[in-house]
Amino acid sequence: MAKAKIDVCRLLQEVRNKKPVIHHLTNWVTIYDCANIVKAFGASPVMAHAPEESGQMANLASALVLNIGTLTIDFIESMKIAAGSANLKGIPVILDVCGAGATKFRDDKSLELLDTVKIDLIKGNSSEIARIAGENVSTKGVDAAEVKNDLEVVARTLAKNRRCIVAVTGKTDILTDGLLLYKVNNGHEMMTHVVGTGCMATSVIGTFCAVSRNLIEASVSGLCCFEIAAELAAEVCGGPGTFKEKLFDYVFSLDKETIKKRQRIEC
Amino acid sequence: MAKAKIDVCRLLQEVRNKKPVIHHLTNWVTIYDCANIVKAFGASPVMAHAPEESGQMANLASALVLNIGTLTIDFIESMKIAAGSANLKGIPVILDVCGAGATKFRDDKSLELLDTVKIDLIKGNSSEIARIAGENVSTKGVDAAEVKNDLEVVARTLAKNRRCIVAVTGKTDILTDGLLLYKVNNGHEMMTHVVGTGCMATSVIGTFCAVSRNLIEASVSGLCCFEIAAELAAEVCGGPGTFKEKLFDYVFSLDKETIKKRQRIEC
Amino acid sequence: MAKAKIDVCRLLQEVRNKKPVIHHLTNWVTIYDCANIVKAFGASPVMAHAPEESGQMANLASALVLNIGTLTIDFIESMKIAAGSANLKGIPVILDVCGAGATKFRDDKSLELLDTVKIDLIKGNSSEIARIAGENVSTKGVDAAEVKNDLEVVARTLAKNRRCIVAVTGKTDILTDGLLLYKVNNGHEMMTHVVGTGCMATSVIGTFCAVSRNLIEASVSGLCCFEIAAELAAEVCGGPGTFKEKLFDYVFSLDKETIKKRQRIEC
Repeated sequence: MAKAKIDVCRLLQEVRNKKPVIHHLTNWVTIYDCANIVKAFGASPVMAHAPEESGQMANLASALVLNIGTLTIDFIESMKIAAGSANLKGIPVILDVCGAGATKFRDDKSLELLDTVKIDLIKGNSSEIARIAGENVSTKGVDAAEVKNDLEVVARTLAKNRRCIVAVTGKTDILTDGLLLYKVNNGHEMMTHVVGTGCMATSVIGTFCAVSRNLIEASVSGLCCFEIAAELAAEVCGGPGTFKEKLFDYVFSLDKETIKKRQRIEC
Repeated sequence: MAKAKIDVCRLLQEVRNKKPVIHHLTNWVTIYDCANIVKAFGASPVMAHAPEESGQMANLASALVLNIGTLTIDFIESMKIAAGSANLKGIPVILDVCGAGATKFRDDKSLELLDTVKIDLIKGNSSEIARIAGENVSTKGVDAAEVKNDLEVVARTLAKNRRCIVAVTGKTDILTDGLLLYKVNNGHEMMTHVVGTGCMATSVIGTFCAVSRNLIEASVSGLCCFEIAAELAAEVCGGPGTFKEKLFDYVFSLDKETIKKRQRIEC
Repeated sequence: MAKAKIDVCRLLQEVRNKKPVIHHLTNWVTIYDCANIVKAFGASPVMAHAPEESGQMANLASALVLNIGTLTIDFIESMKIAAGSANLKGIPVILDVCGAGATKFRDDKSLELLDTVKIDLIKGNSSEIARIAGENVSTKGVDAAEVKNDLEVVARTLAKNRRCIVAVTGKTDILTDGLLLYKVNNGHEMMTHVVGTGCMATSVIGTFCAVSRNLIEASVSGLCCFEIAAELAAEVCGGPGTFKEKLFDYVFSLDKETIKKRQRIEC
């Protein structure tokens, strides 16, 4: 693979200039992190899960983030309304299949969403994505389990079958539309010691997809920025508590020079 | 306008001495911030949204904070029970019309609450308040949009029509009962870069309204303290992440001298 | 009482080595804290409250934590499913009777849970535990009120009657199975100035109960570690905001020497 030529800085600047509204139907554990990370990037998060308004709220947003972390049947129904509304207006829809592979309910509802509405990007960790791709793998709650088959092949096949982008986060992130395949090698081990980095990554992907029609480049750029900020935070923190706060600080103040020096994207 | 003569310090001391219970029916995004800011001021937050207990919990509280940030039909019904119970006992009820002007559902439910129970104070940002006052304005998710008409006139008219206090937060906060009008000029731009400052402001208003019958002076005092702490936090933070944590620190340790030196209240 | 001989360090090491999945049905206020503290200890938190999956998720976990902080009727039903599933597999079930003594609904539902499923450990503050034990006491929202009768007798009797362990947290924590009675004297006053320390304590107890069949020793060890970290955090923080973040830092980096020097457990 070669170093990829994506103008990460331009997209970050677009987010900061346009301050897009990012609508979420997400889980109750990390909703606070998701809202804060979107805000730290300069965008405007909103969360509205009532079926009476989830569609209208999606309409005024520039991206829709769905995360099944604490799903219920009613919540999934409201996601369908929001996504249907977003689909009609061409607003990108991002789905985090959080915990897929842990329970049958999560698997079933993830597939139901994928079969009912147009999802533009599926995001998960290795075992979540493998499960949605049909592999026989068990996710350890919401933490990734080992996947036997080649993750790049799994992701590429899922992307082709579902005609969408697939993002697999981990030590190296894989992003593919079935043909193109990018890898983001930024990030830090400390990200695995706090709750919410996976969910935040999805919200960041949504935030960047809100300002570009090239969703794969947008997603790669978002993850790259997020993970560079995590590297900077990890270098100065005293542990997972102060890491999280400094992560928001570094996202907020991230500049061109730092991105150019640190970005490690392959294509 | 002249410098207002409100004994902010005395009310802060009352909060710390009495440690009032502040009952909340609030949103799932910033519930954590709301609970923590009430606690940092020395009071005792509680959140109980089940209709079977929301009324009884309101009864043992000294103020009730309602926030429609992630409303559902059931949640609004439980708010009515809690507010009805608070009304009977003369416990002040504060309503944050979070996101009014973004969807029809939020507008309708805000008005339904105002028509059904006695709300003692309506709080919102400029476009939320303008919308509840009947202006044709669209809130950008939960972030304020520009309002054409004179905000002071809008707030004053709404206060008169609804026979309550209206609090509009922004760079300058406006608080009015229709006749008196106070302005709080404290605060810092960093407050706009984190999630939850608007919701926390409402919880702080509730906390101070719990210890004084003069709700407008209590609200002015609470906002002033909260925003002075924000100024102090902004001066020493490294960005929005550490700002939030230091905000809690400064609220906790806020003293008379600092308040007297920094308070900027007009009447 | 004498100094207790519990190998706290060994259990902490077990948690870090095994990284057990800790399933939660907990409240929306401190869910974020609960997830983060479990993660900081090296374990894997998961929260899944839908009745369709709460049982299956409990099955793949090593402990189940129930917390009624923001209970609803549906939520309690889902707790029963999760606990029933955990009971069948011998997975320990921890119940935080958060806010018992504040409303009749909380008392009734706590007792209903205790009568319906096997609870291995009941945890609460002084007035919550006293109320569940049948005392006539009113909890101040979710903050402890004074209890007239001897707390050790109350706890011991409740433990005998319910054939489970009872954990009462406070300045001195009391843990008893009805016969044995341990006291943990670690902790710091700053813990009372932030939201979530009580709920986190329960999640920590669950985390340690996941790696040992001796649930009382596990609970004592977990609380001791958590509270030593709180002591360290309190010594260097600037107030409740930075205290919380440093608490996570110190939990993460807690080492044998510090534990041995600071642990204050009596039996």
